[in-house]
Amino acid sequence: MSATESRYGRLLSDFEVGATYEHPWEVTVDGGTVALFQASFLDATPIYASAVMAKSCGLQDRPLHPLLCLNLGLSFSVHDVSEQAIAHLAYIDVRFPEAGYVGDTVRARSTVLGVKPASSGDKGVVHVRTILENERGAVLCAFERKALIRAGKLAERPAWANASGADTPDVKQFPSVPKALRDGGKGGFGPYANDFAVGQVFTHAIGKTIGESEHMQLTALVRNSHPLHFDEVYCKDNSFTKQRVVYGGLVLSWVATLASRDLGGHALWEAGLDAGAHPNGVVGGDTLYAASKVIAVDGEKVTFRLVGVKNRTSASAYAEYGDALFTEELGKKDGKIKDKVVEITRTLHIRRRA
Amino acid sequence: MSATESRYGRLLSDFEVGATYEHPWEVTVDGGTVALFQASFLDATPIYASAVMAKSCGLQDRPLHPLLCLNLGLSFSVHDVSEQAIAHLAYIDVRFPEAGYVGDTVRARSTVLGVKPASSGDKGVVHVRTILENERGAVLCAFERKALIRAGKLAERPAWANASGADTPDVKQFPSVPKALRDGGKGGFGPYANDFAVGQVFTHAIGKTIGESEHMQLTALVRNSHPLHFDEVYCKDNSFTKQRVVYGGLVLSWVATLASRDLGGHALWEAGLDAGAHPNGVVGGDTLYAASKVIAVDGEKVTFRLVGVKNRTSASAYAEYGDALFTEELGKKDGKIKDKVVEITRTLHIRRRA
Amino acid sequence: MSATESRYGRLLSDFEVGATYEHPWEVTVDGGTVALFQASFLDATPIYASAVMAKSCGLQDRPLHPLLCLNLGLSFSVHDVSEQAIAHLAYIDVRFPEAGYVGDTVRARSTVLGVKPASSGDKGVVHVRTILENERGAVLCAFERKALIRAGKLAERPAWANASGADTPDVKQFPSVPKALRDGGKGGFGPYANDFAVGQVFTHAIGKTIGESEHMQLTALVRNSHPLHFDEVYCKDNSFTKQRVVYGGLVLSWVATLASRDLGGHALWEAGLDAGAHPNGVVGGDTLYAASKVIAVDGEKVTFRLVGVKNRTSASAYAEYGDALFTEELGKKDGKIKDKVVEITRTLHIRRRA
Repeated sequence: MSATESRYGRLLSDFEVGATYEHPWEVTVDGGTVALFQASFLDATPIYASAVMAKSCGLQDRPLHPLLCLNLGLSFSVHDVSEQAIAHLAYIDVRFPEAGYVGDTVRARSTVLGVKPASSGDKGVVHVRTILENERGAVLCAFERKALIRAGKLAERPAWANASGADTPDVKQFPSVPKALRDGGKGGFGPYANDFAVGQVFTHAIGKTIGESEHMQLTALVRNSHPLHFDEVYCKDNSFTKQRVVYGGLVLSWVATLASRDLGGHALWEAGLDAGAHPNGVVGGDTLYAASKVIAVDGEKVTFRLVGVKNRTSASAYAEYGDALFTEELGKKDGKIKDKVVEITRTLHIRRRA
Repeated sequence: MSATESRYGRLLSDFEVGATYEHPWEVTVDGGTVALFQASFLDATPIYASAVMAKSCGLQDRPLHPLLCLNLGLSFSVHDVSEQAIAHLAYIDVRFPEAGYVGDTVRARSTVLGVKPASSGDKGVVHVRTILENERGAVLCAFERKALIRAGKLAERPAWANASGADTPDVKQFPSVPKALRDGGKGGFGPYANDFAVGQVFTHAIGKTIGESEHMQLTALVRNSHPLHFDEVYCKDNSFTKQRVVYGGLVLSWVATLASRDLGGHALWEAGLDAGAHPNGVVGGDTLYAASKVIAVDGEKVTFRLVGVKNRTSASAYAEYGDALFTEELGKKDGKIKDKVVEITRTLHIRRRA
Repeated sequence: MSATESRYGRLLSDFEVGATYEHPWEVTVDGGTVALFQASFLDATPIYASAVMAKSCGLQDRPLHPLLCLNLGLSFSVHDVSEQAIAHLAYIDVRFPEAGYVGDTVRARSTVLGVKPASSGDKGVVHVRTILENERGAVLCAFERKALIRAGKLAERPAWANASGADTPDVKQFPSVPKALRDGGKGGFGPYANDFAVGQVFTHAIGKTIGESEHMQLTALVRNSHPLHFDEVYCKDNSFTKQRVVYGGLVLSWVATLASRDLGGHALWEAGLDAGAHPNGVVGGDTLYAASKVIAVDGEKVTFRLVGVKNRTSASAYAEYGDALFTEELGKKDGKIKDKVVEITRTLHIRRRA
């Protein structure tokens, strides 16, 4: 009486620098996927919602929301990279070089850039680069990320689960905005790029309480297979909270879209994310709030430090912490902000007032 | 250390009679939106579910459910009209003059018809007319509504949020049924128009318990930005229930569709809603039931008074209150029905038995 | 003061052997329906997710997931067959002879094969055969099932609800795999048909916690009208658990898809289900796990006994019960497994390693 119990993801010694993993998921994105994304993320950026607007801006149709593409790429990689991970540590240089559309069939692959055991010997940091492509080879999303992985080898990972692929190209070779994109349409509302001033802080007024079903649905929809997000029995023994934890890519998406009515009415593209982390976890029932600080304005590119907090308004967090709200938690010795759930540097491509 | 905290909607002194607000949302409706609507509202009206049926009735494809169009129009207007509202007071003369389809890109605008301060001085009633159009100018929904608004001016509303537009046309000029609509198909089940008798009462037997995630998803899907429906932190201080309240347009939709198996098998269109109100609020976990009373039969037009109650069957409510269940709560001095969550006059265009 | 209160489904004496009921639902399946199914069921079978894969295997597009078709057929029949049922007893000879696609408009009908009163006199077993067809007459799903029904006649069922139709054809005349299906694509991951050995047991490692909103949404999406699944007031008096119970077709789908990463990477079709039952109920918040035992390998056909358990891992259940985990609960005198929520014999059509 013995049974096979396959497990996926990898432990630290399963990673080899330079190896590329072809993730097995192959998914045709449909209008329903788009609608489910819209049904949780009340995004105000017109180009992602309206085919009329998108076409007037040079795209062939309403594009897939870049954050949906990031979630697909990141989640597809869980099966090979992070299903055994203790934590997601960093988002690095995320770009959305080409627009994806409903009907695209997407796949992803990841190349291992680095493996760094911790001095404690029981874990280490894995650094990968992932790209998400459609069936015509258009790169919809490219990014690097780091994850904290337990030491050892995963005995239960079946040999057939290991598909290798061609190297992923360097993220830096990709443009940050689709080539076809141009100013167009009348747009909705919100400030233009030249209305922003470096140092300006926005405490976005409205929050979002996360439903259990909605975060689990989104997690499955993007094929994130880490049981931390949807398997309560697993979580009782394995979750730092003893319960299901909301997948970080969704936390980022909620916080980014909570800022969208104030920042994104004239935005045309998510032109890059960098230096991102999730300092604290989020569970179903938590309410998220967002704050943004302008850190650079360069033509149509406006760069913000975006922060998400939980179960309190961002105005109250800013009143308590001031500009320290926007400094990286990693490396802070004192004054760690226990309510902070995400922080990331984010560039929006926003049209300029004529 | 100061931050910008924009807020939307308006206070009483921000409204000007005759002004028209162009709501910034512009959304291409996709099959996923339709499916999410179907996944919460178990509607039995064949024409909204089946392309085969819809085409046989003269429409070019499966039309968007009229109640989805009402929810889109009403929700789009929240950003400019009611995001600061205390309560939604009345639905007046709602019509669905033309059929919308998957792929339509919709926008809405509202004209202020009246502003009436209450004698208490701290609030007042705003009366607006809203239309929802697609990109070809077809009017998918037109209605008037009244909302209760706090006195004052909203300092935090950014100037750029104020887009004005052309007057909305009078609802009464629109037909109540799309011109192309004709009898066709074989239909599903249910009585014909000439099977109804004035005075007949239906206590619809089956209820629907509302999930937290599902009502929040639908609220975001139709772009309703009032935090009362999805921001638990806001609700602790600002909700009359101290918790999230289900958006009324969804309550109406649940109650109307709970009646659909008994009334709608041969219905071809939602031919108008009027004199509607939400006497009491609904929260996640509540169970809704519906009752209908026939108040007029005129050819293919059958007019009902539709009532929704919570956490008890409509049969038990009818046994307790009798026909008073169907009389307007507004103005009742005694005998207010605390379980009643919606009441509205509703005309269905139903085919006649040959 | 009297009201009409229609009820649907039938009691035992309402069934007549040989009668065929045309179920009134007529639904055009859209991409949103597919996405909602994917958002709850993390299925790893490439052909159901990818249009590229499906076309390379001879299908015209990404097919509807066979388990979605089963859920549609079964749920459409509730209105006429099982809305008054005490329990669903058995799935028998379920086949998916032709592929369905987004855009198909589907209907179903059921023929009564048997009615067998229990010796107690208060209930009996009804045996029906149901087929789900699209508008071109292609049979997407055909199956038999048995349900436990209370004795009596349903006075409140309206006469107009009774539509009769042409006989349903014998399930056995249908092929178990669409004729057009051929090996193609590169597939994702997982073992080939010739990698399986009779007697091999898989305890699938990862579970799925069921959200209240997600199971209610799926139930409505497939038009299952039994209030046991979504009406808490009804359930207080009528449910064996005093609360909402998850619809069994969804339980089966969760358990089958929990097995998909281990078994289905090279699967091309769900080639038949048989001898299936739900020994115990599932409620929202329960966590499901799956185990599979190989019982036959015949070319590309691999037959498994699939079992689902709740709120414990399948590994722990297999450690406790051994191979008895896979024997039918029905008829067991001792050793009934109270955690078992579904058991069914399941054949997958899986490509062979060249």
